[in-house]
Amino acid sequence: MEVSNKVAVIKNHIEDTPKESHFELKTENLSLSLVPGSDDVIVKNLYISIDPYQINRMKSHSSSQKAIYFAAPITPNQAIDGVAIGKVVASGSPRFQKDDVVVGVFTWAEYSLVKEASIINKLDHSEFPLTYHLGILGFNGLSAYAGFFELCKPKKGEKVFVSAASGSVGSLAAQYAKLFGCYVVGCAGSQKKVELLKHKLGLDDAFNYREETDLKSALKRYFPEGIDIYFDNVGGDMLEAAVDNMNAFGRVAVCGVMSEYTDPGKRAAPDMLNVVYKRLNIRGFLAADFLNIFPDFVSCTSDHLRSGKLQNLEDISSGLDTIPSAFIGLFHGDNIGKKIVKVAEQ
Amino acid sequence: MEVSNKVAVIKNHIEDTPKESHFELKTENLSLSLVPGSDDVIVKNLYISIDPYQINRMKSHSSSQKAIYFAAPITPNQAIDGVAIGKVVASGSPRFQKDDVVVGVFTWAEYSLVKEASIINKLDHSEFPLTYHLGILGFNGLSAYAGFFELCKPKKGEKVFVSAASGSVGSLAAQYAKLFGCYVVGCAGSQKKVELLKHKLGLDDAFNYREETDLKSALKRYFPEGIDIYFDNVGGDMLEAAVDNMNAFGRVAVCGVMSEYTDPGKRAAPDMLNVVYKRLNIRGFLAADFLNIFPDFVSCTSDHLRSGKLQNLEDISSGLDTIPSAFIGLFHGDNIGKKIVKVAEQ
Repeated sequence: MEVSNKVAVIKNHIEDTPKESHFELKTENLSLSLVPGSDDVIVKNLYISIDPYQINRMKSHSSSQKAIYFAAPITPNQAIDGVAIGKVVASGSPRFQKDDVVVGVFTWAEYSLVKEASIINKLDHSEFPLTYHLGILGFNGLSAYAGFFELCKPKKGEKVFVSAASGSVGSLAAQYAKLFGCYVVGCAGSQKKVELLKHKLGLDDAFNYREETDLKSALKRYFPEGIDIYFDNVGGDMLEAAVDNMNAFGRVAVCGVMSEYTDPGKRAAPDMLNVVYKRLNIRGFLAADFLNIFPDFVSCTSDHLRSGKLQNLEDISSGLDTIPSAFIGLFHGDNIGKKIVKVAEQ
Repeated sequence: MEVSNKVAVIKNHIEDTPKESHFELKTENLSLSLVPGSDDVIVKNLYISIDPYQINRMKSHSSSQKAIYFAAPITPNQAIDGVAIGKVVASGSPRFQKDDVVVGVFTWAEYSLVKEASIINKLDHSEFPLTYHLGILGFNGLSAYAGFFELCKPKKGEKVFVSAASGSVGSLAAQYAKLFGCYVVGCAGSQKKVELLKHKLGLDDAFNYREETDLKSALKRYFPEGIDIYFDNVGGDMLEAAVDNMNAFGRVAVCGVMSEYTDPGKRAAPDMLNVVYKRLNIRGFLAADFLNIFPDFVSCTSDHLRSGKLQNLEDISSGLDTIPSAFIGLFHGDNIGKKIVKVAEQ
């Protein structure tokens, strides 16, 4: 038996801001027959996680930087792998049965033919909506949790700044900081997002960075006593301004460099004299290095979700056809919270 | 009783590279009478430590940045304080007697009137030459020791790069790394220094950065397997090039930013994508934060000195009049190792 399978690919490498014309939706035929005893599994995708870091895998130099960019490069006209949730439709592996709901590294397609090792977890008995496992209970949540607690080693009452604070990771880092007992200010790119940060997520304050002509002064205004912890999702001039406003022994967890992903010429030039004299610690990280604390993270986050203390922000579009616009929108700040494309009904 | 006291001061704030015309040598009269029971001490200076960081205290904005620059600003026409070794000529304090040899924070002068609290240690029974206590057994040594061991947490066999490796701190950081069992390459600004690094200090390799047109490629050549630890004394484009060549989980100890001290417009713009994907840790530090390990540092360093495994590089000029040229020379790479001005015979 064969199915028709719609697949989203890039037509060429992408060097700057992604556009619709960079993408193509192809239709292929996929055989659902598998050799029993193989470790192949065919998954019908339900929800696909849309993440900005994928742009780095789409660049032409990504193949030469494979070791650096961790994940393998994305090749034009080839399937794009990413975290997704799906339902098993055929399995050559005894570990998975038809109709199992699973989360793993699948493809930007209606159906994915994958190796069983690419399946991270079964989700048949999820207490929370399935989509939570792509964001708040998945790698975005782990990024926020590990970056804030493990890298920043916060103390109660410390002053925390989070950039892209309405994004999938930022919204969680800011809330963890608030729940932990810190003073938390976030920034975002629209007034609507600022209202949400202040009133839905309960941050102490928030501002629209697009309305600030001088980020250094803006941060001085929001942090008259200085910043102890900066959870950085954007890099660029916001990182420079934050470093200027950090307190002695301040910590910067560099989770992402959104403002530099699509502008190769753009670089943050933080004042290194500040780094020395204020003994700052600027540290990059990837959630994948913190799988050892995944159980703690899930337990803590689930507790907060049950008690209603943690708000989950999701932004879901419907249909595989929306993948290009969903991905492109990330770089224009279109999304609020975790961007997900729903591909099929469960 | 009064003595004539020659004092080196700055005439104006210094915003860029220091020049002779920025300095003045004044002669003042100093009374040697002290109120008994006061905590005042008069010290005849023997050796004065000459350190590049002092330039940051001489800038006009240093007073507004007092909290940042740690030490108080240096004011034109006022005595300049710095670490020195001297002999007590008069003491209002029972803790110190005439002729005690002491190290502490005195002034760039023949005589210093100080509070007893500014005296760090008595040196009457020093096993090593007195000058060692300004460099290898003082704060420069502690900077190298703490920066390398405490911040970088080295493992044997790791690849270590040290910039300004013939300087007071760099020459020690490089030797600690070598003695610990790392592969160590240093850079310096002349062929003579490079020879010294390779043959006197025993580094695995060394290069003259002034002869390299592309620092990134140069480091790639010297570290084909990448850099695990960068002990940074210079900042600027060397920091950028090092970050490009770091291995995953690499550590950068930022001890100084020599290339940026005299050029306020100059900034390092390390590639933050590298910082994230390679999970780099860039951390500034000051030796003063590591006084708790001072005894360990002195013990370890003294052992290495006794066994002849550690080379001490000193560059001593004679006479208080040489202070301006000694200080200015730091910014032209004139010195090899620790720069000291000898003010008087013991």
